[in-house]
Amino acid sequence: MPNDKALDALSSFLGDRFSTSKGVLEAHAQSETFVTAPPPEGVAFPETTEEVTEIVRICAEHDCPVIGWGAGTSLEGHALALRGGVTVDFSRMNKILAIDVEDMNAIVQPGVTREELNHELRATGLFFPVDPGANATLGGMAATRASGTTAVRYGTMRDNVKALEVVLADGRVIRTGTKARKSSTGYDLTGLMVGSEGTLGLMTELTLRLQAQPEATSAAVCAFETIDQAIATAMTTIQMAIPMARIELLDGTGVAAVNAYSKTSLPECAHLLVEFHGSETSVKEDAERFGEIAEEFEAKSFDWATRQEDRTRLWAARHNAYWALQAYKPSTTGFSTDICVPISKLGQAIADTNKALEEADFIASIIGHVGDGNYHVNMFVDVSDPVQKEQAKAQAEGMAERALKLGGTVSGEHGIGFGKLKFMRQEHGDAWDVMGQIKRTLDPQNIMNPGKMVPGN
Amino acid sequence: MPNDKALDALSSFLGDRFSTSKGVLEAHAQSETFVTAPPPEGVAFPETTEEVTEIVRICAEHDCPVIGWGAGTSLEGHALALRGGVTVDFSRMNKILAIDVEDMNAIVQPGVTREELNHELRATGLFFPVDPGANATLGGMAATRASGTTAVRYGTMRDNVKALEVVLADGRVIRTGTKARKSSTGYDLTGLMVGSEGTLGLMTELTLRLQAQPEATSAAVCAFETIDQAIATAMTTIQMAIPMARIELLDGTGVAAVNAYSKTSLPECAHLLVEFHGSETSVKEDAERFGEIAEEFEAKSFDWATRQEDRTRLWAARHNAYWALQAYKPSTTGFSTDICVPISKLGQAIADTNKALEEADFIASIIGHVGDGNYHVNMFVDVSDPVQKEQAKAQAEGMAERALKLGGTVSGEHGIGFGKLKFMRQEHGDAWDVMGQIKRTLDPQNIMNPGKMVPGN
Repeated sequence: MPNDKALDALSSFLGDRFSTSKGVLEAHAQSETFVTAPPPEGVAFPETTEEVTEIVRICAEHDCPVIGWGAGTSLEGHALALRGGVTVDFSRMNKILAIDVEDMNAIVQPGVTREELNHELRATGLFFPVDPGANATLGGMAATRASGTTAVRYGTMRDNVKALEVVLADGRVIRTGTKARKSSTGYDLTGLMVGSEGTLGLMTELTLRLQAQPEATSAAVCAFETIDQAIATAMTTIQMAIPMARIELLDGTGVAAVNAYSKTSLPECAHLLVEFHGSETSVKEDAERFGEIAEEFEAKSFDWATRQEDRTRLWAARHNAYWALQAYKPSTTGFSTDICVPISKLGQAIADTNKALEEADFIASIIGHVGDGNYHVNMFVDVSDPVQKEQAKAQAEGMAERALKLGGTVSGEHGIGFGKLKFMRQEHGDAWDVMGQIKRTLDPQNIMNPGKMVPGN
Repeated sequence: MPNDKALDALSSFLGDRFSTSKGVLEAHAQSETFVTAPPPEGVAFPETTEEVTEIVRICAEHDCPVIGWGAGTSLEGHALALRGGVTVDFSRMNKILAIDVEDMNAIVQPGVTREELNHELRATGLFFPVDPGANATLGGMAATRASGTTAVRYGTMRDNVKALEVVLADGRVIRTGTKARKSSTGYDLTGLMVGSEGTLGLMTELTLRLQAQPEATSAAVCAFETIDQAIATAMTTIQMAIPMARIELLDGTGVAAVNAYSKTSLPECAHLLVEFHGSETSVKEDAERFGEIAEEFEAKSFDWATRQEDRTRLWAARHNAYWALQAYKPSTTGFSTDICVPISKLGQAIADTNKALEEADFIASIIGHVGDGNYHVNMFVDVSDPVQKEQAKAQAEGMAERALKLGGTVSGEHGIGFGKLKFMRQEHGDAWDVMGQIKRTLDPQNIMNPGKMVPGN
């Protein structure tokens, strides 16, 4: 094995916190995606920044790939060891280091999950808003620039990571950003690292921006005869600048899957699931304005979830939509892809997508964070059928091309990983080469998550 | 002259849109700062991206520095030609290329000023929120990551530039970002360019995020016996998460200067100037909550500016504070410096600053965007007195050190330019070297605004 020396050195260094057992390796070859790769050659479980530094140093010495691992919930094969090497599993770096209520931020290790952080925050009146559905680690969310249902109001990880500690490929440990609310001193390295998918370094500490829990929250489920009406309602709501906290689209198939999985009983047609945050009166006012727009587009029903437990059930159902869809057709595998288009193009993009899906031999569902112009297609593919597999691939590629044609991006939140590398040139042109130059500068040996993100890698 | 060949080639290329006349050169050596430098050797006035590309190509061929120039309002000598070379004045690239009301964005050339853009937007119901006071160009604001009075609500240029066209040092023209509201595809090069102060490339086109004009706006002026009470009110307001549109501090000296310059008649004590954006009811509610906090900290008076003309006068007075301070003591020169600290440290930072200022032979004023923890000290310095000049320098350095000691940043919005280069190591540590690596990768000849931003440059 080419990386034997690195594996031996890591084993000596970490003892039983370095594993080459088949079960552990295979657990780190799992991915919520069609993209597959052989397992890594070893998995390290560091507990401190110093240990991460030494792991990277050892790997650099032996030219061995290093791949970060959070909760394994990424959707484009980000954390797969395409070129072998060592996976750094951050599950033991899962401490919340500080919660600063006065300055509304938290300092966490990368292995803390968003649910763990929010659990700790309950008594403070604060919360961490970014919510991709899965209970991902905050390090993984930062590395993939995750977003989700609340991004329409609170932004993505780009907007909610204030500062980082990062171990670079040459073992340097840098700190980017400060706890101040803004700064104009130098290149925005925090922003450069967020979304870099582990190709520039490994994050070992994150300073996150927290939000005040809203004084009042209300949520509603709104059913439409057609998906077009639901989308028109969403587009108008955003264009009227109603400050939505969430505005989610589920098509009829999506609702059927959610009903089956979460024991809900929504009518099986297109729905918007919405939430409002604010004061008692502003929430009421925003909800009324939204209600008027929904009515204009002939919403069939409009049900309020005013009780906390109803809202929790509602959003749990939405969060579980991915697994609901996975489970909906047991003989099939769910294949999910996402794009994001300018909000004015959302109707056209979804209509074109539905038209294209008519050609497929499988059924599919469209769900999305429509307030951001971001939507997902979940395809129910019989993977034993090579025709269906090819069709699914073609549909995903058609989605990406549609996004580019409409001035959008080939991924709103899933990222590039391995799955969407082929679209980088088309989306970024020569700017993709600039990404490659930055990568080669900071990682000339190409040990940090090789095979991902940049050209010729 | 070492750059004669470049100057000759540029003159042939641009004709009378390339100037080496003394008046033009000296106009491009002006700076709102103590930092001085000799004028550039030539000034180019391009009209298209293609011309900017050719200018950069010619300069690269002859190893000649290239410095971007917007409105010349930066405060740390950003656009001074420290190593000679050619200034690229964007005043003829001042077209608004597109206003997309549905997607709430605008595409502009870099020489458009923020006031020009907002003038064009008047009929659309949208506005561009970032407001540094000066009528800076949008290109300059992006290059320096400007912010100002409304950043507490709408963010800085980091948050409001969606996409860029940039001419790189080697003449490549790249496009970063898309018109979609979010993306997770690749390194955030838009974020890398915003705030890079012309050291990585020249921006030739900007796609900006627009905001809906609020349905209702109200503003108030709130006087306090002591500056501590004003700061405590601001800190509590932010910690209570009241969604302020602006919350500005002026100390007694600042108010006196504003009164003299803008013919206002505010009592000469510490003030908060606040503004609320929202619906009629939310604005009323927010203002009431703010009023309760101000009362708790014994505000002396609380005057509403409900009429548009009163608000305009109020914010014009605040915007003119910089010039008001410049004019306040005619025998002195105003020297302005800014820092940004975590909001919880704001009271301590300002108290320490005031204590330090007691040692100075000149008077000074503290004004600030206190909702962000960002404040400015304006010192009235007799520049003919070398002792005062030294004292001013020492005060500014003390400010920067105070910011770092309190977990903040040496500039919230003025940037680094030439004036604050010496603090980069202290603030960023090894991350500053990473900035240097990126710079050398994208500009190996070091022609883009040399002498700024990065180490050993």
